[in-house]
Amino acid sequence: MSALIKPLVLPVDGRQSETALAVARGTARLLHAHGFCVVSELPLPSGRRADLAALNTNGEVWIVEIKSSVADFRADQKWQDYRAHCDRLFFATSQDVPCEIFPPDTGLIVADAFGAAFHCEAPQHKLAAATRKAMLLLIARAAALRLQSLIDPNGPYGEFV
Amino acid sequence: MSALIKPLVLPVDGRQSETALAVARGTARLLHAHGFCVVSELPLPSGRRADLAALNTNGEVWIVEIKSSVADFRADQKWQDYRAHCDRLFFATSQDVPCEIFPPDTGLIVADAFGAAFHCEAPQHKLAAATRKAMLLLIARAAALRLQSLIDPNGPYGEFV
Repeated sequence: MSALIKPLVLPVDGRQSETALAVARGTARLLHAHGFCVVSELPLPSGRRADLAALNTNGEVWIVEIKSSVADFRADQKWQDYRAHCDRLFFATSQDVPCEIFPPDTGLIVADAFGAAFHCEAPQHKLAAATRKAMLLLIARAAALRLQSLIDPNGPYGEFV
Repeated sequence: MSALIKPLVLPVDGRQSETALAVARGTARLLHAHGFCVVSELPLPSGRRADLAALNTNGEVWIVEIKSSVADFRADQKWQDYRAHCDRLFFATSQDVPCEIFPPDTGLIVADAFGAAFHCEAPQHKLAAATRKAMLLLIARAAALRLQSLIDPNGPYGEFV
């Protein structure tokens, strides 16, 4: 193995429950099957973080908020903010959480660690061109910098966040 | 450590020499200091691969071709093709390669494994908006999918390429 390529260790993200991580993984696999790549925990200009920001080859942006329990959903009073940063907004949850708690005007994905399914389609609220470009840049730069921090952990890229 | 987060091993890329990997790492650190994130080995619509594709917060795209020896540069007759996919085109090399062999109308970076310096600035040839959007999407999706293949190696994301 090259001296410049070493085994990488992804830091543990203590912010997320095991259920939330499982839902994130299964949801990302579903989105991949629909042509979307995914960046998790994407910081937005509003100061919030999108649990999953997804991007397809047309530049369409979806945001998926993961709610691993009823309490987790009820604690989030500001989820409407995410609409301003995506073409479609979804919640994703596990099959243990009743679907009825989620708002009818968002999409809903039910997932486990191995896959997921669309429970409700999400209405489209198309981004303005400038916002779309800003989101593409955010997604590109977050993904590239995280990859760089893994490839060159002694470089100037900071912690994997 | 969560069962869903395991140590990651980045596959060895046998296509690149030790010198080329060192130049890539040092160059990426320099570009970071100038506000650019970097994706390596980016497949382009032309079928070629950019050694380093760099993106700043304004959406400016630079491509850096790494040449680890005189022979390496002389073997590449098609480097002009990269101009169509970036705002500025650079070569990057080690200090053992004479700078005089590189074309005067491209930028030149001299690097080692720990850092780099601009030897010549690159002229700007600004991308059309549609090409810029295509490059942002390519960079975003390549970085995100590589990260996904590392985070979820049993997922549908293929090998890290």
